Amino acid sequence: MSENTQVLLRRRPVGEPVEADFEVVHTPIPTPGPGEVLVRAHYLSLDPYMRGRMSDAKSYAKSVELGEGMEGATVGEVVASHDPRFAPGDLVAGGKGWQRFCAMPGDALRKVDTSIAPLSAYTGLLGMPGLTAWVGLQDIGQPKPGETVMVSAATGAVGQVVGQIAKARGARVVGIAGGQAKCDFAVKELGFDACLDHRGDLGAQLDAACPDGVDVYWENVGGAVQAAVFPRFRDFGRMVMCGMIAQYNTAPGADTSGAAAGPNLGAVVRKRLRIQGFIVFDSGWQRYAQFLAEMDGLIRAGRMRWKEDVVDGLENAPRAFIGMLRGENFGKLVVKV
Amino acid sequence: MSENTQVLLRRRPVGEPVEADFEVVHTPIPTPGPGEVLVRAHYLSLDPYMRGRMSDAKSYAKSVELGEGMEGATVGEVVASHDPRFAPGDLVAGGKGWQRFCAMPGDALRKVDTSIAPLSAYTGLLGMPGLTAWVGLQDIGQPKPGETVMVSAATGAVGQVVGQIAKARGARVVGIAGGQAKCDFAVKELGFDACLDHRGDLGAQLDAACPDGVDVYWENVGGAVQAAVFPRFRDFGRMVMCGMIAQYNTAPGADTSGAAAGPNLGAVVRKRLRIQGFIVFDSGWQRYAQFLAEMDGLIRAGRMRWKEDVVDGLENAPRAFIGMLRGENFGKLVVKV
Repeated sequence: MSENTQVLLRRRPVGEPVEADFEVVHTPIPTPGPGEVLVRAHYLSLDPYMRGRMSDAKSYAKSVELGEGMEGATVGEVVASHDPRFAPGDLVAGGKGWQRFCAMPGDALRKVDTSIAPLSAYTGLLGMPGLTAWVGLQDIGQPKPGETVMVSAATGAVGQVVGQIAKARGARVVGIAGGQAKCDFAVKELGFDACLDHRGDLGAQLDAACPDGVDVYWENVGGAVQAAVFPRFRDFGRMVMCGMIAQYNTAPGADTSGAAAGPNLGAVVRKRLRIQGFIVFDSGWQRYAQFLAEMDGLIRAGRMRWKEDVVDGLENAPRAFIGMLRGENFGKLVVKV
Repeated sequence: MSENTQVLLRRRPVGEPVEADFEVVHTPIPTPGPGEVLVRAHYLSLDPYMRGRMSDAKSYAKSVELGEGMEGATVGEVVASHDPRFAPGDLVAGGKGWQRFCAMPGDALRKVDTSIAPLSAYTGLLGMPGLTAWVGLQDIGQPKPGETVMVSAATGAVGQVVGQIAKARGARVVGIAGGQAKCDFAVKELGFDACLDHRGDLGAQLDAACPDGVDVYWENVGGAVQAAVFPRFRDFGRMVMCGMIAQYNTAPGADTSGAAAGPNLGAVVRKRLRIQGFIVFDSGWQRYAQFLAEMDGLIRAGRMRWKEDVVDGLENAPRAFIGMLRGENFGKLVVKV
C-alpha cells in the first residue's frame, strides 16, 4: 500500500451517470501538514446526495470541480498524526473523499466507539444517514404513539433508521421499497408493521395498509411514490423531505419549469399539512452526542437492526453508486476500500 | 324590523356561484331559549372560506345543507338576553349566519371594545381575518427583521394585516394585488415597500422587486401567483398557506388528480423550505386576547390602517360574495345588514 487511490470526477453526467464520468487514479500518499492527520480509509460511504455534487446546478453545497476527487465520507484509522488528540491506530469517522488516504485537520474527525457498533456502521447507522433520520424525526416528523409513519426507500440507509426510531417511539410504521425481498426484510428484520412494493399498484396497497391515512411521510424518493402518498395524508400530517432520488438524474434545478410538476397544494390548507425539507449538514452534527446516546440505547436494547450492502474495492465505487441511483442496493451502500 | 331576513343555500354551485344558488327569505325573529342571547346583526363578514361550506366535498368543516342558512359571522348588538353576561345594547362579535337576527348561546359571543376600532372592524381587522394573519405569522411565517415577506391578496382582509404586522416586526413587505389602485393603496396607505400587479408580468416584477428572493410567502391565492413566487424562495423560506382562492371555484377535492398540479418539491429539500397550512378555527381563538393586545398597541401607535369594502343590505350579500371570489372587492368585504 505505497500509493493512494482516488476517484475523480471526470465529466458532469447528463442524466444517469456512467462509469466514464469517473476516473480512478493512483497518486502519492499525501503528507500531513502541521495539525493534520493522515487517515487510511477502511470504508467509504456512498450516498444519493453525491449526485448533486456532480452537477454544476446551484444547490446548497458547492459542486465538485472537474478533475477533483469525488466528495464523500470515510471511516478508517489514523496512520500518522500531527494533532495531539489523535494517535496512529485510532479508529475515526469523518475522513474525506473517495480515496484510500487523506490528510486533513483533526477538527473534522471523530473517534468512534466500536463497542456500540462495528466501524462500518459509522458510515450509516451511526453516521450521516442515521443522524439524518434522527434529526428529521426530532424536528419535523415528530411521530406520536399510535400515528402512522410511512417511510419510502425503507431499506435504504436513512429509511431503516427512520422506521426503527419511529417504532421505538410507539408509531405504526409502513415502509415502501422496491421488490419483495426488501419488503420482507423491512417487516421481518426491521420490525416494520408492513412494507409496500412500489413496483405493484401502490395506491391500492396504501389504501389497504393505511385505510385511515398517513400522519408522517418520510420522503426519500419523489416521483410516483410521492404522488401516491400525498393524497392520503391525515389532518395535521407532516412530510419530512429528505431527498427525491427519483429525480436526481433528471432535474438539475428541480424547481424550474422543466421539472415534473408536484401535487396541488390545496390539501396543505384543508388538512393543515406541514411539508418541510432539511439538510443534516446544516446543524445536525452539533447534536451528534444526543443522537448517539439514543442510538446506543436502542442498539443495546436490541431494537435497532442494520443492513449494509458492502462493495469490495474503491475501483468499484462508481458502478455501485450508479446502481444505487437505480435502487439496486439492498441496505446501506458502503465500499470496503 | 318585525321579521328576520336570512340568506339560505338553495343549490350547490358548480364552479363559480351564481345568485340563484342563494335564496333570501323573510322569517319570524327567533325567540332566545334558556341561556341564549338574541343578537341583531349590524355587519356580516363575507370571507372566501364560505365557498368551501357551499360544497359537499369533504373538508375540515361540515358543509351547509341545502335549505339551511349560509354560515358566517356577524357583529351587532344584543336585543334580549337570558345569559347574565350580556344585556340589551351590548355590542358583540360572534353572531351566526347570513341573517339579521340570531338566537344563540352566550358562550360563542364576545363583547367588543369600540374604543379600539369601530364595530365593523371586528369582522376583519380585529376578527377572524386579522386573527388569521397574526396566528400564521406567529406559528409559521415568523418574519425576522430585514427578511422579505411577500403577501398575495395584499389588500384583502387577511393580507392587509399580514403586511402591516410584518412591517412592524421589521421585515420588508412586498404585496401582490390585482390592479394599480390596490397596489397604490398597499404602498401609500398600508406602508408596504412595494406591491406588484399580478395582471402584469409577475415574474419580471418579482425579479425587480425581490432580486434576492423571498423569505416568507403568505399564500392566499394559489394558481399563477403561487407558480411565480415558488421558485423565488431563499434558503429556509416559509410558505404560510392560508387559502388558495384561485381554485375555490374549480377544485372540490384539490388534492385529487383532477386538480391543477403544484410545484415540483425538489426545492423544498435543497432550500430547506417549510410549507405549512393552518386554519384559524382550530385553536386561534384561544389566543385572541394576546392578538388583541398586540393589535391595540399597533392601532394606538398609528401603525395599522384598515380598508373595508362595505356593501349595503343583506339581500346584496350573494352578489358581493360572488364578486369577492373574482377579486372584485377592494378591502375587507362587509355587508351592512
